[in-house]
Amino acid sequence: MPELRQDPVTSRWVIIASERGRRPTDFEPAQEPERGGFCPFCPGNESTTPREIYAVRPGDGANWELRVIPNKFPVLQVEGNLDRAGDGIYDKMNGLGAHEVIIESREHNAQMADMPLEQIARVIGAYHERYIDLKRDFRFRYALIFKNQGEAAGASLYHSHSQLIALPVVPKRVQEELTGAKRHFDYKERCIFCDMLRQDLKDGARVVLENEDFVVLSPYAARFPFETWILPKAHQACFETISASQIHSFARILKNLLQRLKRVLNDPPFNYMIHTMPLQEGPNDYYHWHVEVIPKLTKVAGFEWGSGFYINPTPPEEATVFLREARVEREF
Amino acid sequence: MPELRQDPVTSRWVIIASERGRRPTDFEPAQEPERGGFCPFCPGNESTTPREIYAVRPGDGANWELRVIPNKFPVLQVEGNLDRAGDGIYDKMNGLGAHEVIIESREHNAQMADMPLEQIARVIGAYHERYIDLKRDFRFRYALIFKNQGEAAGASLYHSHSQLIALPVVPKRVQEELTGAKRHFDYKERCIFCDMLRQDLKDGARVVLENEDFVVLSPYAARFPFETWILPKAHQACFETISASQIHSFARILKNLLQRLKRVLNDPPFNYMIHTMPLQEGPNDYYHWHVEVIPKLTKVAGFEWGSGFYINPTPPEEATVFLREARVEREF
Repeated sequence: MPELRQDPVTSRWVIIASERGRRPTDFEPAQEPERGGFCPFCPGNESTTPREIYAVRPGDGANWELRVIPNKFPVLQVEGNLDRAGDGIYDKMNGLGAHEVIIESREHNAQMADMPLEQIARVIGAYHERYIDLKRDFRFRYALIFKNQGEAAGASLYHSHSQLIALPVVPKRVQEELTGAKRHFDYKERCIFCDMLRQDLKDGARVVLENEDFVVLSPYAARFPFETWILPKAHQACFETISASQIHSFARILKNLLQRLKRVLNDPPFNYMIHTMPLQEGPNDYYHWHVEVIPKLTKVAGFEWGSGFYINPTPPEEATVFLREARVEREF
Repeated sequence: MPELRQDPVTSRWVIIASERGRRPTDFEPAQEPERGGFCPFCPGNESTTPREIYAVRPGDGANWELRVIPNKFPVLQVEGNLDRAGDGIYDKMNGLGAHEVIIESREHNAQMADMPLEQIARVIGAYHERYIDLKRDFRFRYALIFKNQGEAAGASLYHSHSQLIALPVVPKRVQEELTGAKRHFDYKERCIFCDMLRQDLKDGARVVLENEDFVVLSPYAARFPFETWILPKAHQACFETISASQIHSFARILKNLLQRLKRVLNDPPFNYMIHTMPLQEGPNDYYHWHVEVIPKLTKVAGFEWGSGFYINPTPPEEATVFLREARVEREF
């Protein structure tokens, strides 16, 4: 079973995925995921994946348009109860969690940027369904939904997919946001993300897109060139309270943004992840869920690893201009 | 001038290196640094680099064996005074700092693992000299010394070199270590790194190498496969208090480790960085300087960016066995 270990100095958790047991020769340079060859995510190969957890089969139900399955090589395992233990000055837990894959389309070559709006809304809907279901499992404290596209961004299969990992602890990056947002609220009695939105919407220089429910910003202190965040316009702490109409407006703004990134940056590898409240905590006035979208354009090197500082060679205000001016299929 | 901006939620600083002004088309896929072609770090091309800050010219002084120069494309600028400013809810500073390059050898093709011990000791000696000099500049609060080898680890030139970046703030990763170490000390009145060393040296399963002054550990909660840390055996808070004999024993253990990594992992790209106390704070009983060495074998993807969790597919105890069993030139 995988093991969660905590660094005694910084309290940072890592997953030691010993089942993967990678030996030195297993680290040959990665290849861009193959477009051809056998694909376990394609229609007809359903029997080669672990048993389906969720699916969308419109109309007569003969064909699926989206499937959710457990990851065949999970980093955490779903059986058992949380077991914490010490080893001298060190602390560990068994690697309890869930690791699911959302197969976003039956089309092997479809990229999310080019999918019909309805299909992107199904993907967001599937995130929502799975999130709600995992929330019922009190062993889990956080569910991170994310997407890797392209080999440089960590994707190992070409067929478009997202992932969901449920964890028995609240991860560090999220905890830092919660702590910072709570501190601001305690001091000002306002949501810090709402404050950012208010200032940025007034100023305009970092607003890439907006529709009735969402805004895409180039954040003021973007870590990476062309990093953007998608935030609900009105205060909303938890992703799971997204409404059916918000799912559709979210799909529209996401497609619009992904098309612009694809156009401006020549189809870049990218990651996105949803940041929301911990699973077992409800809506509140201080946190604001959002999606962080990061095109993979630069290398993280010794300076970043050593300092936690990031060097961003493209000011967010300039990235905003490039993204705003990009031509897309049509306005959404 | 570059700008330091702070994320209002997490207090994370980033450097907006606007002078680099990278446009979308500047992010074409990087190439492995060229071994051939013009090299500004080679003997004969000294006039193409910014003016030398430090050099080692043994014997009659005709030939240099090591040079330190300002980075031609610095991420921070050394002139002026620190100027903090607010912009509504946002905070920024001007990008004050130093960015130096240590050219480690006159040989274009020499990798550090294969350099003579004496040359590696010169490199460590140069780190020490530059560190001591920058400590006199009270505008700087931290100096990070690091090395990137190989394109995947962020190196843009082939000729072996390290870098030093002096910053007007203590970086987040270091602050986290200081805070954690201080908390442990306040509670136990012991250095947490000394506690780790005591337990790991007794246990043995994560000890890769040791000599009279230093130990190489695979840390208990290693973030990356084959990550190792080099620590002084005896308590020592600050890198700058390294003695002449420690510089030599450090060079020996570093060469030994780099040869093992090269052998076991087939000449991997890697980063290392020195973690020490902030520049203007002296020796103490709670912190312990060390070097973190990270071979670049896996991709950082959405899960890591979103959570701050790391997934390490090689248990540190297994990495230790592979590194211990590797054959090297000779024992150091």
